Amino acid sequence: MKNRIGNAIVGQSGGPTSAINATLSGVIRAAIENPCIEHIYGAINGIEGVLSENIVDLDVQFDRPETLQLLAHTPAATLGSCRKKLPPYSADDPTYHKLFRIFEKYNIRYFFYIGGNDSMDTVSKLSTYAAAQGYDISFIGVPKTIDNDVMGTDHTPGYGSAAKYIATTMQEILCDCAVYTVPAVTIVEIMGRDAGWLTAAAALPRKFCGVSPDYIYLPERPFDYIQFYADIEAALKKHPNVVIAVSEGLRRSDGHYIGESAQSGVTDVFGHAYLSGTGKTLEAAVKQQFGCKVRSIELNIMQRCAVHLASQTDISESIRVGEAAVRCAVEGGTAKMMAFKRISDEPYQVEITEIDIASAANHVKTVPDAFINENANDVTDACIDYILPLCIGELPLLYQNGLPVHFHIDKTPVSAERS
Amino acid sequence: MKNRIGNAIVGQSGGPTSAINATLSGVIRAAIENPCIEHIYGAINGIEGVLSENIVDLDVQFDRPETLQLLAHTPAATLGSCRKKLPPYSADDPTYHKLFRIFEKYNIRYFFYIGGNDSMDTVSKLSTYAAAQGYDISFIGVPKTIDNDVMGTDHTPGYGSAAKYIATTMQEILCDCAVYTVPAVTIVEIMGRDAGWLTAAAALPRKFCGVSPDYIYLPERPFDYIQFYADIEAALKKHPNVVIAVSEGLRRSDGHYIGESAQSGVTDVFGHAYLSGTGKTLEAAVKQQFGCKVRSIELNIMQRCAVHLASQTDISESIRVGEAAVRCAVEGGTAKMMAFKRISDEPYQVEITEIDIASAANHVKTVPDAFINENANDVTDACIDYILPLCIGELPLLYQNGLPVHFHIDKTPVSAERS
Repeated sequence: MKNRIGNAIVGQSGGPTSAINATLSGVIRAAIENPCIEHIYGAINGIEGVLSENIVDLDVQFDRPETLQLLAHTPAATLGSCRKKLPPYSADDPTYHKLFRIFEKYNIRYFFYIGGNDSMDTVSKLSTYAAAQGYDISFIGVPKTIDNDVMGTDHTPGYGSAAKYIATTMQEILCDCAVYTVPAVTIVEIMGRDAGWLTAAAALPRKFCGVSPDYIYLPERPFDYIQFYADIEAALKKHPNVVIAVSEGLRRSDGHYIGESAQSGVTDVFGHAYLSGTGKTLEAAVKQQFGCKVRSIELNIMQRCAVHLASQTDISESIRVGEAAVRCAVEGGTAKMMAFKRISDEPYQVEITEIDIASAANHVKTVPDAFINENANDVTDACIDYILPLCIGELPLLYQNGLPVHFHIDKTPVSAERS
Repeated sequence: MKNRIGNAIVGQSGGPTSAINATLSGVIRAAIENPCIEHIYGAINGIEGVLSENIVDLDVQFDRPETLQLLAHTPAATLGSCRKKLPPYSADDPTYHKLFRIFEKYNIRYFFYIGGNDSMDTVSKLSTYAAAQGYDISFIGVPKTIDNDVMGTDHTPGYGSAAKYIATTMQEILCDCAVYTVPAVTIVEIMGRDAGWLTAAAALPRKFCGVSPDYIYLPERPFDYIQFYADIEAALKKHPNVVIAVSEGLRRSDGHYIGESAQSGVTDVFGHAYLSGTGKTLEAAVKQQFGCKVRSIELNIMQRCAVHLASQTDISESIRVGEAAVRCAVEGGTAKMMAFKRISDEPYQVEITEIDIASAANHVKTVPDAFINENANDVTDACIDYILPLCIGELPLLYQNGLPVHFHIDKTPVSAERS
């Protein structure tokens, strides 16, 4: 393996998380320190920024460790994101031609893409094209998604912070709901189209705080209204304040989403059904069935952007995985996705590893059977033990004038700077 | 004035806040320390707990300062709450008879009620009855409401923490919304049926962080769809990510709530219209009008229970106002509501005072004209300067195993303990 001296470019793609900028900070820090990398560029709005040459110089903006720390504590994707799906690989596709011309123009030897399942697909396609066409560029994917549904890694950066937000907020909601004596059902809708990892985090307060939602319904099991009503009836007999956590992706046994009626037929660019209103749909159904007070709460995008509740474990790991991606690339790795391998539960220990990206892209990791109870209305202790270590620790956030301080990037393109 | 030695009872009423337990902790601490008070009791679920003799002994549970601090950092109302409205004063009403028999039974000389406008009405009625019937009991109201709509006080305990939650979350939502380039409108629905204080807090990140929602609509101004669409159109011409803060209590010029259709005709026990869906209603309207991506976010009850983001200023003041209520009562005060008087803005300074409760009960303090801009689609700098000091400072929360630690009360009634 020969060292290849050149430039690196990094982009962010897919939905924001509380940790995607932490990974970006790790990539930038490692790139700045690595002698094989002369410049580290940022692609604004992911692969779209490469295509439009909307590329910024990151070396200059991050010459101080404080700035990198501020970046790591800033929510969402500082470089902007996109949901662009590359066309299937084809030697004469103009999109690929253009992309690789721009890589040549900027002397790009290392390409880092921080994103979810769909972004790993982009990395996989680019590396396949590069190999076929003889380009000497390393393509490395770094997973991030609050959904935790990426194959080949124990968990994804961003999940631990979202889980901590959900668990903390659930604990506070449980306090709030306990104050009245009038029978009431509160339904908390949590993100997760195909996998129930986020919804499962609602169970965390049970282990050490002794409080928990009455039921937790994950999309891994078909949703049955009859069982659901029976569950609620049983809970209302025990106490007046019933709290339920549901995944936005709940489906009936016929495969139709519970929340589908509200947004029938609408899909996003990847063909995923656009969901809205699982909580609202169930709220109306329970109100109809029981005639009691019913409220639904959507944790909405706060789940993915509430850095003020980020997990220190998640943010630290997210930085480390970004740094490791740079090492992997400089050592000659390509078509790889960075991953976590859990070494032990107690004490919690992970090591960073890398896997072939093709084995991760376009697959969804769902919650395993061992983590879901027999009645399909709760998670098991094993599930809680898996999630909890990912939520440990609080960030030393910088607050000024009562609010957390965020980093704001200068998006002036390199081309404009040079002209 | 003669010192009256006897027992005290405290209750919580109305909607939970992040600070109502802080005030409770202040009342308990001051009562325990005051030689005129032999026992401090807690009424479970407010005035309903008195009527049903669901009364707990608080001296025993709070004999350590750490427990009081934990209580002050626990969301919602630890004693439970109620929404019971006392019947109008009448000398022969059986409810009043019963209440005062129980006060006598427990040798109650001091009654503290922590609540919002409706709770102040309860204190006002009880003190009127006591005066007319010759009972020597002090009735003191301590305001709490995230709504900040109580007359006679610069602000209410609980508002600063809710405002900090709203401002912090809005700042994170703004980060999240900024990542895509596709035109999109995000509508954030914030609590406040009649007053826009909470919605106004969405503007806070503007002053020091330089980010802000594009528009802020308060219930103090009639909502005009034509102006609303014109505002959005103008914003979409400037940037693709339009973010709007709206109050749940927005009304058209004919007085009907925007969100009314969803819950038509439903009212709570105080006759207030039950609102749901202002954000959802506007989401559908904007989607219809512009055809772009539209999302609505309800900050929901997290606004009132997110102690993990509580304001240190608010929590400290809430404790102090509880302590002051005890002093006021022991010094012979009755039919009073504790209040804050702002002495100066820079540096921010308040003093605690007391006002006649009749002047506060059943009135609503709305956002003044000087705090709303001419176009009725934003707040002024003066409004931000009023709110900001109330949000300063972060709580030194105790976290264990990744989650904040909350206090859990023992609700065994005094009568059961004695039997």
